[in-house]
Amino acid sequence: MQIQDVFRYYANDLKRVEENMEMSLRSEVRLIPEIIHHLIGSGGKRFRPLLLLAASELCGYRGERRYPLSTIIEFIHTASLLHDDVIDQAETRRGKVSANHIWGNAASVLVGDFLYSKSFKLMTDDGNPAILKLLSTTTNTMSEGEVFQLMKAGDINLTEKEYLSIVEKKTSILISAACAIGGILGNATDSQIEALTRLGMRLGNAFQITDDTLDYVAKEEEFGKAIGQDLKEGKMTLPLIRTMKKCNPEERLFIRKGIEEKDEEAYTGNHDADPPL
Amino acid sequence: MQIQDVFRYYANDLKRVEENMEMSLRSEVRLIPEIIHHLIGSGGKRFRPLLLLAASELCGYRGERRYPLSTIIEFIHTASLLHDDVIDQAETRRGKVSANHIWGNAASVLVGDFLYSKSFKLMTDDGNPAILKLLSTTTNTMSEGEVFQLMKAGDINLTEKEYLSIVEKKTSILISAACAIGGILGNATDSQIEALTRLGMRLGNAFQITDDTLDYVAKEEEFGKAIGQDLKEGKMTLPLIRTMKKCNPEERLFIRKGIEEKDEEAYTGNHDADPPL
Repeated sequence: MQIQDVFRYYANDLKRVEENMEMSLRSEVRLIPEIIHHLIGSGGKRFRPLLLLAASELCGYRGERRYPLSTIIEFIHTASLLHDDVIDQAETRRGKVSANHIWGNAASVLVGDFLYSKSFKLMTDDGNPAILKLLSTTTNTMSEGEVFQLMKAGDINLTEKEYLSIVEKKTSILISAACAIGGILGNATDSQIEALTRLGMRLGNAFQITDDTLDYVAKEEEFGKAIGQDLKEGKMTLPLIRTMKKCNPEERLFIRKGIEEKDEEAYTGNHDADPPL
Repeated sequence: MQIQDVFRYYANDLKRVEENMEMSLRSEVRLIPEIIHHLIGSGGKRFRPLLLLAASELCGYRGERRYPLSTIIEFIHTASLLHDDVIDQAETRRGKVSANHIWGNAASVLVGDFLYSKSFKLMTDDGNPAILKLLSTTTNTMSEGEVFQLMKAGDINLTEKEYLSIVEKKTSILISAACAIGGILGNATDSQIEALTRLGMRLGNAFQITDDTLDYVAKEEEFGKAIGQDLKEGKMTLPLIRTMKKCNPEERLFIRKGIEEKDEEAYTGNHDADPPL
């Protein structure tokens, strides 16, 4: 069985998630959905909702709460990408014109804030204290990870442990939360929920490490986006950390110079876009 | 009695609020409090906590929950100012060097996100469903107001009603929430909480309209910041809306040209800083 088969199996549920997202975007400010559609389109893979649906089914829950809770997870993910865009733009402004020439940073910041606050509103509507606690801790940890990454920007001595900590906080913890919510919805035992949490963390780590590795070894036409971006932007990821250990002093100096040149600029996000599945 | 007397009356409680804020900023990422202190300092007037304390006392509550709840309100306020800074920087970048030259937009966005998510975590720790509902709706309305303002940027035809809607959503609703929380803490009746909510809305409106008016009529040394900024930045506020109604066609054309020149740039916040009390 391939991942496409899983997407196909959940096609109807994922359609319900899309409808729920649309419904949640309705706003008194008529133009908010327009900006959001303009900015994020509707082409997301919905990988996190898929995991929430699968974990729910695993734990015997197939009820309606899966849809708003998937919306919440997807809104948090989208908001974090929008805010990463601002950080990206700050760095690459000279290189290329922003896609959102009209609205620029302002729209990315504000629409991200709208999605974050909407997701919290949807959580309080759901009202489950365990889910509220899980997701408020998750978003807080995500932003800690973002700040930690910013502090480590251009640090050639970033350790594997620090790299993994950033990956876990920025990427894996939300994927992990999607899995854990399935367990909570299915009234799973604490140890079952913990197992789902661990599964999500490992899946998230594998997901991000794969993406960071593909940035070095993929063929551009298969990867679906430009490769070599991380090195270009001075991002220390696992392939570079490992390379630094193996190469000779001359090669190490060459890499160090390249990375440190980027040190004065803002650091970009580690997960600007998901790898293609 | 003057406002300074009220601040003096609550001096000890406000000190407890400061301590609670400090405690809440402790993070595994050691440097987060450093950035926050660097960015926001500790000189805030704490006007919103003051209202929460006063409303609580009015309703007979003087317990410990006032401190974390004041922290939450102040964190939401500070986060909104930090994100306004990014929007401001996008507009005035050419005019002046950013105060946070080292971290720039990245830190403002990420530390704002950290404060928002921390405030939601503190809310779920408090756990009161009425307060969770109130504050999640409040922050969502605030971001709606921000987006609405962005959509109306450079719109010379902004009506008084639209101006007031922006003021209510961006500024007054959080002040109103601070008052309402005092009522909830004191187990006030629904109609008493509604009265506190209305009081907060009116106080917020008065507060912002005063600030917008002082931008035209104040003396710079008394106002404590540069005057004439709103006109310079193409912001339509109440004094300008009223002036447009009263002036002759030639004068109107002159104003229109000045405002519309700013239309292509991002719109700045309406409440970048509070007026001095």
